[in-house]
Amino acid sequence: MSSAILFASKKSFPAAHNAVRTNWTRYSSALNTSTNPAMQFPCLDKLEKKTAKLRGDDSDPNTPSSKMSCSMEEDATSASSKNDPVYGKVRSGFQLFKSKQPIFLDYGGVLPNFELAYETWGTLNEDKSNAILIHTGLSASSHAHSSSSNEKPGWWEDFIGPGNSILDTDKWFIICTNVLGGCYGSTGPSSLDPGDGKPYATRFPMLSIQDMIRAQKRLIDCFGITKLKASVGSSMGGMQSLAYGQLFPDSVEKIVSVSACARSHPSSIAMRHAQRQVLMADPNWKRGFYYPSEEHPDRIPPHVGMKLAREIATVTYRSGPEWESRFGTERLDDDRSPVLCPDFLIETYLDHQGEKFSLEYDANSFLYISKTMDLFSLSKSDQERSQKRRLQSQRDFESGVLPSSRLPDEPYKYKKRRRTTTIEESRKDLEAGMTQLLDKDILVIGVKTDSLFPYWQQREIVELLKGPNDNVTHVELDENASLYGHDTFLLDLEIVGSSIGKFLRDQL
Amino acid sequence: MSSAILFASKKSFPAAHNAVRTNWTRYSSALNTSTNPAMQFPCLDKLEKKTAKLRGDDSDPNTPSSKMSCSMEEDATSASSKNDPVYGKVRSGFQLFKSKQPIFLDYGGVLPNFELAYETWGTLNEDKSNAILIHTGLSASSHAHSSSSNEKPGWWEDFIGPGNSILDTDKWFIICTNVLGGCYGSTGPSSLDPGDGKPYATRFPMLSIQDMIRAQKRLIDCFGITKLKASVGSSMGGMQSLAYGQLFPDSVEKIVSVSACARSHPSSIAMRHAQRQVLMADPNWKRGFYYPSEEHPDRIPPHVGMKLAREIATVTYRSGPEWESRFGTERLDDDRSPVLCPDFLIETYLDHQGEKFSLEYDANSFLYISKTMDLFSLSKSDQERSQKRRLQSQRDFESGVLPSSRLPDEPYKYKKRRRTTTIEESRKDLEAGMTQLLDKDILVIGVKTDSLFPYWQQREIVELLKGPNDNVTHVELDENASLYGHDTFLLDLEIVGSSIGKFLRDQL
Repeated sequence: MSSAILFASKKSFPAAHNAVRTNWTRYSSALNTSTNPAMQFPCLDKLEKKTAKLRGDDSDPNTPSSKMSCSMEEDATSASSKNDPVYGKVRSGFQLFKSKQPIFLDYGGVLPNFELAYETWGTLNEDKSNAILIHTGLSASSHAHSSSSNEKPGWWEDFIGPGNSILDTDKWFIICTNVLGGCYGSTGPSSLDPGDGKPYATRFPMLSIQDMIRAQKRLIDCFGITKLKASVGSSMGGMQSLAYGQLFPDSVEKIVSVSACARSHPSSIAMRHAQRQVLMADPNWKRGFYYPSEEHPDRIPPHVGMKLAREIATVTYRSGPEWESRFGTERLDDDRSPVLCPDFLIETYLDHQGEKFSLEYDANSFLYISKTMDLFSLSKSDQERSQKRRLQSQRDFESGVLPSSRLPDEPYKYKKRRRTTTIEESRKDLEAGMTQLLDKDILVIGVKTDSLFPYWQQREIVELLKGPNDNVTHVELDENASLYGHDTFLLDLEIVGSSIGKFLRDQL
Repeated sequence: MSSAILFASKKSFPAAHNAVRTNWTRYSSALNTSTNPAMQFPCLDKLEKKTAKLRGDDSDPNTPSSKMSCSMEEDATSASSKNDPVYGKVRSGFQLFKSKQPIFLDYGGVLPNFELAYETWGTLNEDKSNAILIHTGLSASSHAHSSSSNEKPGWWEDFIGPGNSILDTDKWFIICTNVLGGCYGSTGPSSLDPGDGKPYATRFPMLSIQDMIRAQKRLIDCFGITKLKASVGSSMGGMQSLAYGQLFPDSVEKIVSVSACARSHPSSIAMRHAQRQVLMADPNWKRGFYYPSEEHPDRIPPHVGMKLAREIATVTYRSGPEWESRFGTERLDDDRSPVLCPDFLIETYLDHQGEKFSLEYDANSFLYISKTMDLFSLSKSDQERSQKRRLQSQRDFESGVLPSSRLPDEPYKYKKRRRTTTIEESRKDLEAGMTQLLDKDILVIGVKTDSLFPYWQQREIVELLKGPNDNVTHVELDENASLYGHDTFLLDLEIVGSSIGKFLRDQL
């Protein structure tokens, strides 16, 4: 039931009114034109051009589709062999640990063999007591620091070095690996499945943080190291650092966990979920099977989805106050009409961050490791379930059960709408899972401006351990100490760095 | 320079080792199978099926492509005419205000005429002094409350009604419009451009919050109302509410602004940027020209992009603590291997929210209004620039300048990397722009768990006005008062609702 009120007053434009109507009628109907100019989309033009270039549809002979790789910057090195996939073996300067034993995984999968890319700095001492294992965040390689094999600065360049007050390579033997599931030299979804010689893609088994640790432990064992001086990590690395202590409490002396948690929380899962769904919606993702092959030579990586996923991730890496001070709400040009492509400074920043990453990392590695972070939990019930599944996987593998028979009969149904355990029960479960950590020296660092792993998640770790463990040290950076949000661990030498250094030297 | 360390120890699986190798070799090479089952993607199957259905590629005769609309639930009503586009005129129960005068816009565009969908509740008294204008959030229609024309509950159903302690329709005459740019009856990108009779699409001019207010003011004038009792809004509506006081200080008595700000902030822009870019990456979006036409009858709305955009938005609408209490980190089935499609409860929640919205709202309206929110500012320099552009637009229009000549000569360049004004300067600018609000009765409400419009943005409004204006009342809901984050304004009768009610009755 609608009625129309006609607005007939000429108050607003008394003099111009007739001229307006006349001109309007004349130019619009005579020229059949739109009232306003069509918006331009240079950001989409750019993406389409990039897609064409990757497909080899452009005239530039320097960018054939076979150049697509985990990192566009560097070529394959001596680490690669004819069995290596296009993705994942393209960075130089790392060493390669090859495990020929199968590894049975927490969620029921198996890798018949695997490789881990790793780098070391400093010298392992005679009694092998000076080794420190550094764990990376989601998208990092083993290249934490420059070396003669790779002179480029590493992701923790200023934290590591001879005489460095944080990680002194004159004193410690530092090891860093590219995680299992990664694409910078380690076995991941872009690697070839020994089953049929084709890339695993989304036939790669789901991993847990603990699986990554078990893989690393084989490398540590191989060095003959029986006890690490320390397990040190930030973000996902901070999860790994705690998991090392949980799985191998007798094999590690000190634990440093920065900007991490004892279990993932729904708000972090929500942000990573958005990134994954966006990436999976890219038509070039093709359910993970985007690696070019003989049958499909024109497949290209889902660079648009990766760009978008990284933009969403970037929102969670820094803080509003930092952006306020860097960008405010200024636009590239305040005198122009706004557009839907990036025109605020903050938008061009996000756009640039996404663009830079879009071909740097294997999309499937990103998806798997992102999900692995979501699944992280130190709780007892999770450990028990994992143990059961690993054993089942081993039995299946040994008796030659075919992969297809391990598929669930029916897809997930939306059975539950709410949690079935209370907050208290899950906290008890977590507490029970962390008993192995109770006698360890642990440093937990949190940052008030971190929105991805908020400070209360680090407080939770401390609270869960603190009562029975007086060896837990908690450092919290308030808003004045760092505006860098989650990324503080990459940038802050003053508090994050110096706390780690002092803790390792028994001075904190 | 890489070397390989072969891990040859059989320690981990001493007994099983030979059996493992034998079986592995046998079944993998003989059957040429993958080591693990390929992952299944029911979430993508579903989206593909929906796409096919929208295109009419399926066998279901009840879902022809012509059924696509702003709301799938209801049919066009008497409000529609043969000139109405497929989108935007499909909800019943509203009235239609038609302005035949052109409106010149803050960013230089023009609408030769426009319509606003609106609804009212209660009765306008004789001296027209009891009218309250309610402003909506981004995606809402004029349907704030049920009525005989539309008996469905409105988005503020419990806040409005006869004898209601918040907005008493026995006392007040309540008006709510679908904003200019919207798709629930008002002129927006899905409307036909009178220039050529085709949908505006992305030829629609960019809007400001103030433009929306100027459009509403014509409706208010048409009612003969010279002074509103109050301008009330939350979220984007809270921006509008302040803008009404800024533009027409003598035409409004009281202002209520809930979970809004005096200007957008980069962290909110960042989140909305991500939503827009994701939507624009949907191949069905086609730079805004996705409305089916005679030439392109098979065009369909970018439902995947809309779903994803809404999922990202939903992350900012609620709070981590609420999700912790509702979902925790429980999965649909802890005993199954995790998948990349939604399997955490929080994921299924986001997925469902996105899915529900994906065809409910016009994608271009979403993009434009989202950008309009980013652009919101009460600052003086913005008002001055806007004034200049509106006048230029009017001159162009009257002298028949063609739209194409209003296009910038070259696309945006990344000239600036950092803000060019200081935080203090922009605050002064904002303060200067808010002088019109200084003698108004204003209620500002903030929510501590709101991550999209954090509480300090409401404190900023209060601080900017408080000194010279002792009629500003500030209410802040702490974490114990509401876990609902930004959405609190839709749900909380106890504090948000009762504060508004008391403020309108001069009891707060």
